[in-house]
Amino acid sequence: MARTSAQRLKGFRDFLPEAMALRRHVMGTFEQVFQRYGFLPWETPSLELAETFDGKTGQEAQTLMYRFTDRGDREVGLRYDLTVPLARVIGMHPDLPMPFKRYHIAPVWRYERPQRGRFREFWQCDVDTVGSSEPSADAEILAVVSECLDAVGFSEYRIVLNNRKTLSALARFSGASPEQAVDVYRSIDKLGKIGVEGVREEMLGRGLPPEAANRVLELISIQGESSEILDALEKYLTDDPEGVTGVREMRSVLDLLPCFAVDSSRRVVVDPSLARGLDYYTGIVFETEVDEPKVGSVTGGGRYDELVGSFAGRSLPTVGTALGLERILEVIAELHLIDAPNAGADVLVTVFDENSVAFSLQLAGDLRRAGVRTEVYLGPPGNLRRQLGHADKLHIPLTLLAGPDERARDEVTLRDMASGEQRSIPRQEVARQVLAALHSSEGMPV
Amino acid sequence: MARTSAQRLKGFRDFLPEAMALRRHVMGTFEQVFQRYGFLPWETPSLELAETFDGKTGQEAQTLMYRFTDRGDREVGLRYDLTVPLARVIGMHPDLPMPFKRYHIAPVWRYERPQRGRFREFWQCDVDTVGSSEPSADAEILAVVSECLDAVGFSEYRIVLNNRKTLSALARFSGASPEQAVDVYRSIDKLGKIGVEGVREEMLGRGLPPEAANRVLELISIQGESSEILDALEKYLTDDPEGVTGVREMRSVLDLLPCFAVDSSRRVVVDPSLARGLDYYTGIVFETEVDEPKVGSVTGGGRYDELVGSFAGRSLPTVGTALGLERILEVIAELHLIDAPNAGADVLVTVFDENSVAFSLQLAGDLRRAGVRTEVYLGPPGNLRRQLGHADKLHIPLTLLAGPDERARDEVTLRDMASGEQRSIPRQEVARQVLAALHSSEGMPV
Repeated sequence: MARTSAQRLKGFRDFLPEAMALRRHVMGTFEQVFQRYGFLPWETPSLELAETFDGKTGQEAQTLMYRFTDRGDREVGLRYDLTVPLARVIGMHPDLPMPFKRYHIAPVWRYERPQRGRFREFWQCDVDTVGSSEPSADAEILAVVSECLDAVGFSEYRIVLNNRKTLSALARFSGASPEQAVDVYRSIDKLGKIGVEGVREEMLGRGLPPEAANRVLELISIQGESSEILDALEKYLTDDPEGVTGVREMRSVLDLLPCFAVDSSRRVVVDPSLARGLDYYTGIVFETEVDEPKVGSVTGGGRYDELVGSFAGRSLPTVGTALGLERILEVIAELHLIDAPNAGADVLVTVFDENSVAFSLQLAGDLRRAGVRTEVYLGPPGNLRRQLGHADKLHIPLTLLAGPDERARDEVTLRDMASGEQRSIPRQEVARQVLAALHSSEGMPV
Repeated sequence: MARTSAQRLKGFRDFLPEAMALRRHVMGTFEQVFQRYGFLPWETPSLELAETFDGKTGQEAQTLMYRFTDRGDREVGLRYDLTVPLARVIGMHPDLPMPFKRYHIAPVWRYERPQRGRFREFWQCDVDTVGSSEPSADAEILAVVSECLDAVGFSEYRIVLNNRKTLSALARFSGASPEQAVDVYRSIDKLGKIGVEGVREEMLGRGLPPEAANRVLELISIQGESSEILDALEKYLTDDPEGVTGVREMRSVLDLLPCFAVDSSRRVVVDPSLARGLDYYTGIVFETEVDEPKVGSVTGGGRYDELVGSFAGRSLPTVGTALGLERILEVIAELHLIDAPNAGADVLVTVFDENSVAFSLQLAGDLRRAGVRTEVYLGPPGNLRRQLGHADKLHIPLTLLAGPDERARDEVTLRDMASGEQRSIPRQEVARQVLAALHSSEGMPV
């Protein structure tokens, strides 16, 4: 077969077993939280008709989506997110019981410039509640975010909260024209990056009158506890019913979070400047920030009451969030928050020589039937040193050895790879003793 | 937001929660078997450089692969299988400990004509052992296939076994020219579909001399037990060293399978006509057949000693198999082999009225902390009938109800949805009693 150079696409990754162990552990942990809240698993195709995404996620998706024409001349695209497919599936299944709660853990694809923590194929963990406009549905999503991050060892994080309704009230309050509202959102969304004066310049550059810019900056500069910010906002926006509704929705969420054992004063920060890029949000929006490492927001979400209905042809208010697995893993790695469990074998059964193959295979079979993850050395039989080296490289904690003399005595040798300690055990005792060694905390490794 | 018609691409599927429960259960079962044998999990990108697949999987891949030019003008393709990416990754990681055993459960994409059991996006479950030419590695893969199928309730299946070495010896034996060998393979691979006379016509049509066709048919028509077929083959091919090697490799596999507790006489059938489409096989090849339903082979694999090396630049003999999840699920569904476990909530906490929201959320929190999967009704509070209907639709076995009077007595009502039976329990006993009800086999459902 002709030699081929092995090359991977830029921005794409292979996950070797050691990396996979941590990824799977974190995804499994999130999944347990999702299930504990009654979210149901589902999956949707990787490929969608491109038009499904058109006009849904905003301009960015148009430029970042992997689009192409398939062999049947259809315009198709690799899914850009898990939210638009959610809306599409709900639209195709009018019989689903509402409120409907699903989670979806899967890769999405975007033609981004690859850089630290940013890939062209990356995993999202989404939870959404469709068909509920209750504040308890909003609060539950925030509680899920908090519980997921707690469960993987995060201690310092803040959920930044705002509401699209107060945001548009803020634009009206400033005196910006309806056309200028989007310029206002785009500008203030950069507050964290470019500061107050930067936002002012940005707004002026976009043609906003100076007095309007001032009024915007007045509102987004309110300092204090979340409840103080909300009180102040409500005063400013008191003549704007939508703005007041937005403030009250945020207050409801903050009030309900303690019922989920989430300390809202510690975990949630109201920030009137948070906009979030996606066009479809209609109510609360939120992101989770960590101070270190600098990876950007690790989760993002909000309420979007019209997207699902636009496929379903009826009103289906929805709230949800995506947890960004890649960034969360980066935080876990950088701060050494958790150790990955060993995904590999517990025991390597060595093969003494050509004539021992059957014996070793049978021994392994006994162990597997007892539930022990067991590898038989499949390289050339003999050369025990090489076989023990193999166990070391794979971090297999125990090995079993048996030469002809031991087999004649109906015994095998159990070796603890960490300590080098060895002992003889009767053949029929092997499974029991290996299980005991794996479970024991003294001497033998777990 | 503008109305969008909800459409899914032909040949692609959404997996709603009920379907997912079974899919996940089967994949989880396979994964446990893989891990018990010491195979390690890994993942590779969905998208590869198209050239990675070129000349590897044969002509079919060229026409069936989803290929396109990305925004950076690269020729890329959605992965056609999980085997070529395996070879590519091994080629990029010369430091992996050998023999290296990995499993990979993931979707692959082929532009097939959609039909019953055939999709454009479908899941494969692959296990491969790289860097071993031992017959025990071959036998282990067959044992894994057998254990996986046993674990999901298959009882009637046969692993059909052949060897590429005997196959090419058979072509030589017939007198076909080396160029005609491929015509011979293609023709005899259809034996099951078109019968002996069909194969004869096919070969003659492809220009094979009649006496060569006769000799081919003589060999592939050998009847009997596997060991008898192998004995006969060895006699016919006695002057062809490669053919004899092929026969002996199959014999070794059959001899080793009992060490894995696989009854080779019952589970394995040698069939000298089995070719398998893929170009890269070099040793044993095998497929698994079931009589009912007619879904084609449910697993397929073999030894391919050159593919991995063609990326790695050194010899890395490899054996592996793919389990076809979609067909296996079809067999499970058709024969009702296993029931999917409930993936949803164990309990629905109802919400009596607006003023009960906090109480219901706190009650749910207690249950979740006790490990109970708990949903709080997130539709409008009140209307208990609707809430109980919701629990029914979602197959949630237990519900909790609490009106103001009960709350005043610090009690809640636990309702078994199957029997309709209700009883009052003290508020602080809820988690314990719900767990007991879930675990009890009498009265309350599990």
